[in-house]
Amino acid sequence: MTSIPTTQRSGSDRPTTIAHIAAQAGVSAPTVSKVINGRSDVSLETRQRVEAVIREHGYERSHRSVRSAPLIEVIFHELESDWALEIIKGVEQVARENDLAVVLSEMQGRRTPGRSWIDGVLARRPTGVIAVLSDLSDGQRALLKSRNIPLVVVDPTGEPLHDTPSIGATNWSGGLAATRHLLGLGHRRIGVIGGPESVLCSRARLDGYRAAMDEADVPVDADLIRYGNFHVQEGITEGRALLRLPDPPTAIFAGNDLQALGVYQAAREARLHIPEDLSVVGFDDLPVATWVSPPLTTISQPLVQMAVAGARLALRLARGEHPSQTRVELATELVIRESTAAPSR
Amino acid sequence: MTSIPTTQRSGSDRPTTIAHIAAQAGVSAPTVSKVINGRSDVSLETRQRVEAVIREHGYERSHRSVRSAPLIEVIFHELESDWALEIIKGVEQVARENDLAVVLSEMQGRRTPGRSWIDGVLARRPTGVIAVLSDLSDGQRALLKSRNIPLVVVDPTGEPLHDTPSIGATNWSGGLAATRHLLGLGHRRIGVIGGPESVLCSRARLDGYRAAMDEADVPVDADLIRYGNFHVQEGITEGRALLRLPDPPTAIFAGNDLQALGVYQAAREARLHIPEDLSVVGFDDLPVATWVSPPLTTISQPLVQMAVAGARLALRLARGEHPSQTRVELATELVIRESTAAPSR
Repeated sequence: MTSIPTTQRSGSDRPTTIAHIAAQAGVSAPTVSKVINGRSDVSLETRQRVEAVIREHGYERSHRSVRSAPLIEVIFHELESDWALEIIKGVEQVARENDLAVVLSEMQGRRTPGRSWIDGVLARRPTGVIAVLSDLSDGQRALLKSRNIPLVVVDPTGEPLHDTPSIGATNWSGGLAATRHLLGLGHRRIGVIGGPESVLCSRARLDGYRAAMDEADVPVDADLIRYGNFHVQEGITEGRALLRLPDPPTAIFAGNDLQALGVYQAAREARLHIPEDLSVVGFDDLPVATWVSPPLTTISQPLVQMAVAGARLALRLARGEHPSQTRVELATELVIRESTAAPSR
Repeated sequence: MTSIPTTQRSGSDRPTTIAHIAAQAGVSAPTVSKVINGRSDVSLETRQRVEAVIREHGYERSHRSVRSAPLIEVIFHELESDWALEIIKGVEQVARENDLAVVLSEMQGRRTPGRSWIDGVLARRPTGVIAVLSDLSDGQRALLKSRNIPLVVVDPTGEPLHDTPSIGATNWSGGLAATRHLLGLGHRRIGVIGGPESVLCSRARLDGYRAAMDEADVPVDADLIRYGNFHVQEGITEGRALLRLPDPPTAIFAGNDLQALGVYQAAREARLHIPEDLSVVGFDDLPVATWVSPPLTTISQPLVQMAVAGARLALRLARGEHPSQTRVELATELVIRESTAAPSR
């Protein structure tokens, strides 16, 4: 039998059978079945040996034999701000349409879930898993694959080297649109606060910023580029640092709306008025962007729709369909409110 | 056998046996067992007949026979704002400590969940159910009880006539503290926006307002009392109505922080400065209260701790314990920021 990449195999002609796994792991075939079916009457040591063989050699259960639970799992890197809530709403919507319940997990800031999470998922056997601003290890992906539990990543954090389906937004275009808007108003000293450097979406936004600056022949000053987590506090800290520069920016493009609110506070401390003394652009367009004063100009990211698209994609994969598109970016959009104006100096 | 109230019975001396239920419903005892165990191989019609008998005559499964899933269910009236997120964080914390997964449902604004939700819960057999700002019907409560699935209500909406354990906050004291703070600053025309009239916590806050006004011998003007849902938009609408009165208030105590942000917007439209021209107090102390300008004076409600207490109580009940306290109110606290000052007129 020739070696066919796992993703193109259907369940019936799988090269690694339960018998093969059993032989490799030195256990009986029924024991392998028990592990695969999430039964608890297998010792931890045996289960780990079987899982190791599955990770190494692969095993894809036929779609026919799947008895998944009417659950869809969502795992968050952290539950911070309405950002997470928008995602939950989108998944809830698809879950409701399909009579599924939503299981929610949080990693408290970590980017990869731990052992107890994957054990729980394998025991619950959900119809699909959505990972938000986080990612699974290769081993965890292999374990889900061995049970035919599809995984979709929303807003992937790392390089898309592996073939996990993902839903994102056009972050690069968003960074471009935000920066073009500020350039169009006459700003030249434009500060930017990125998200964490390791997170792909924030790198894309920053690259969009650079592209717009290059396009306008405005040199990028390294002093004007800062990084921080997607929280209000980082906006305060990095906003203060930017505003204390000898030649401070007249506009700041924040990594997200929460950082932008932090910049509002840094501006208040420096007795600068927005937008007269400082223009501010956010990213996401959370409800709070319209509640603050002045209402925040921002890049709208269709978070609910991203979650809906992610959940629908997971369900299609669970039905054994092969969608032509498994890496989707939904459009972002500039929303001009009252936090941006022409520079006064 | 004398009739003993269901809540005081332990499972072993239950008066209604499976045989009794079977006889009443005109089905076999194994069929009743199937219904109770959430098996799907029972016709809808039969199941409904059995459920009806259980609702009418009661049935409490012995704790020994319970095989609940390692899940805890949370049902929300709606997923709006960081309010919901704080509750989710608290439940997640307890779930993590106890190796449980969190199942999340939303009722899209309704106060009582529907048939498909209760069917799902009975099939999933969670360790406990937390209902947030919502409540179950008598029939739904009976169904959960028949499976020994404990229910805890966080921030109950209706009159606490039934014996469902609940966790709330000291809403009345919060309303009193907010109003005393404004009276102490010299305000006499104090407007108040309550939540929906049918929701118990908002009535308690309003009663606290009345108590503080009475205590200070300030007559309550009915024109200054408005009602609305807990959203920003209601704050705008009711804030506008209050500020357009012939004799407008110099201070507004909003039903929650989101309504207070709506009042901020109504004040902006009327070119009133906060706090110079209008003092504003919120309720909840969501993160956003510190992000807005001016930072919002509000009543802090310990939402995460309320959720933690609710989840812990559900788990104690699931273990068959009988906690002495099953109706708990956690303390609220006045947090003075920059949205309140003495009246200028």
